[in-house]
Order: sequence, then structure tokens, then C-alpha cells
Amino acid sequence: MSRFIVIEGLEGAGKSTVQAHVVHWLEAQGHRVITTREPGGTPLAEKMRALVKEVHEEPLTMEAELLLMYAARVQLVKNRIQPALRDGTWVVGDRHDLSSRAYQGGGRGIEDRLICQIKQAVLGDFKPDLTLYLDIDPAAGLARARGRGELDRIELEKIDFFERTRARYLELVQADPDCERIDASGNEQEVKTRVLACLERRLCTPG
Amino acid sequence: MSRFIVIEGLEGAGKSTVQAHVVHWLEAQGHRVITTREPGGTPLAEKMRALVKEVHEEPLTMEAELLLMYAARVQLVKNRIQPALRDGTWVVGDRHDLSSRAYQGGGRGIEDRLICQIKQAVLGDFKPDLTLYLDIDPAAGLARARGRGELDRIELEKIDFFERTRARYLELVQADPDCERIDASGNEQEVKTRVLACLERRLCTPG
Repeated sequence: MSRFIVIEGLEGAGKSTVQAHVVHWLEAQGHRVITTREPGGTPLAEKMRALVKEVHEEPLTMEAELLLMYAARVQLVKNRIQPALRDGTWVVGDRHDLSSRAYQGGGRGIEDRLICQIKQAVLGDFKPDLTLYLDIDPAAGLARARGRGELDRIELEKIDFFERTRARYLELVQADPDCERIDASGNEQEVKTRVLACLERRLCTPG
Repeated sequence: MSRFIVIEGLEGAGKSTVQAHVVHWLEAQGHRVITTREPGGTPLAEKMRALVKEVHEEPLTMEAELLLMYAARVQLVKNRIQPALRDGTWVVGDRHDLSSRAYQGGGRGIEDRLICQIKQAVLGDFKPDLTLYLDIDPAAGLARARGRGELDRIELEKIDFFERTRARYLELVQADPDCERIDASGNEQEVKTRVLACLERRLCTPG
């Protein structure tokens, strides 16, 4: 049976590198795999992503930001993720629901109860089978992200926004048995070793 | 004290004509007035409107459509309607919350309870002071709308979609004392007379 695995974490935590390692590992087990990124991942969801990421003259309210994130997520889930899973293909996502609860909830201060109500209204009980949260110090992560080039509207937030986001991530990950915190400090090889150990523990049937 | 008045109704019900009459009447009473249209009415909300109205190759899910409507609505309420009301300016809107409950609820079949949860999560108790629902037979309205030119994605729906939307409008209007059903059949002068009689009854202090 195919599964939906999500990589979560702050800017510069190494999500796309880890996503590639997870895909490689799954393919080596003989699985068909597609990748997604959020917000985005379908033509319409990418247009919604642009509205969220670009810097506009008119302030984007935090509530509209949250709704755009879920609008893009519904497009991705219904038009891409669920069809792939039904087809037996594994899906490895760069961000999903936990990002909204951490950034719009912890970072911006929208009540988690309200975010979960919106999620439930439009996506019901759909959720990832496994979420790997790459935990990194926000300052270290932002330094890495800045090294990559220009920052988008969300990356331009102040450090305390990312501190609150991380704190919420840690709370949510601890409360959900389908989430794993991965220490994302150290070099790529060290992080990869931790990720693959986690995948073997969670996904390989003992025998 | 300034108020928020909304004109609702199906395609071709005569909303923009009635909106102009309401504005004229309010200005004659000495009020400052602005108009809005939904979805849209701010630069970002107009971009969201375009995503909802254009015909796309990728199907827009009904849930994403609903979320985009509310994302646009939050932008309009927080960045335009509430500042105007605080400033003592009256606002006359072409569509608001009732449209989502009638079209996405009645027309598309999303549960009203879920729509109200989303509304409450992002807009709290904010609502119009008075809503005038222009009631018209869907076939007659669509014939008028078609006479105006090319139809957008929503106007391309089949007649039974608009029948369901009208039925929901009527239920919601009957249940809310801040809503008035206006018979929108007949010529412009007849409808105008009904609208102005309603405004005098609802908005003029006796004495």
C-alpha cells in the first residue's frame, strides 16, 4: 500500500535535500514515487502560491494567507496526491498541514482550533502517514536560506516569528504519533543517516 | 452611524442597477458612500476573483473555490469595508457572505455548517446590517446575463445549479431578520420603487 510522507521544517532546515534522500530510499525498495511542494504543486495551486509568496503593496491579512494555503492544499490533495495514492504511487511532500499550524498558528497567532476547523471542513480526515520534522535553530536555518538568494514575503519575517513557529512545530510533533522529530543540525551525511534510520524503523515490516 | 448594506441575487437579477439606486438614495440623505463588489474590491482580492472566474484546464475544486471566496472577502472586509465604516462612510456591496452560502452551499452542495465555520474562523461576528435579496426566476436572470456578453466559469453552470442556489437564498433570507426579499421581476422603475420603500422602512427613524 502506498503512503504519503511529508518533510517539514523551517527555512534552511534542509527539506529538499532530505526529500531527495527519501525518494531515493523508497525507489530502492521498488516503490513508484512522486514529490510535491506546498503551497503549490498544481497549475492553480502555484498561482495561489504566488499570491502568498510575493511582496504586495496591499497587506495580505493573516486570515487570507491561511485560506490561500488551504485552497492550494485542497487543489493538490484532490487533483494530485489522492489520485497518486489510489494508483499505488507513494507521495513525498515538501510541507503540508503542519506548516499552516506552525507558521499561521504559532508564527502569526491564529488559534490552532480555528485552523483545524478549516482543515476538517475542506479535507476531512485526510492526513500524512508519516511526517518528518527537521528541527533546526531558526537563526542557523535562516542564515542558510539567505545564502541561497532573495527572500520571499514569509522569509522576510523577524527571528521571533520563526522562534514561535519552531516552538509550535515541536509541540505538534510531540503530540502526534505519526510525526518524528529529526535533529537537522550537523552535515548532510549525518542528517541523512538519521532520516534513513527513521524510515527503516517506521516503514520496514519486521521479519 | 454608518452601515454596511449588501445587494444579493442571481446573475441578471439587477444587482448593479439597484446598487446605484441605493447609493443615490443614501447620498441624498447626506451620507458618504462607497461601493464594493465580491469577490474582489481590493488589488489582491481581484487576483483571487480572477482565479475563481476564469475557466482553467485544471478543475477548481469546490472547496478551493469556497476558500478563495473567503480569502478575497477577508481582504475586502479588513482592508476596505471596516476602515470605511470606522470612518463614518456607508458601504453598499454587490454580494457578500450570503452568496457563498447560496452558491457554494445550495448550488455546489457544501454543508452550510462548514461554510459558517470557515466564516466564523476568519471574520468572527462581522455581518451586513441589511441585505436586499433581489429574487428572480433563474431562467429569466440568465437570459438577461447572457444578453450582456460572455459568461464566466460560474455563469456556465446548468440551470438546476441556479435553481438550487435560489432555493438556498430564499431559505437563508427567510431565516435572517436582517435580510429582505425584494421581488426583482418587472421593469427597473418597479424594482426601484420596491427597493426604496424597503430602505425607508428599514433605515429611516420614525418621527
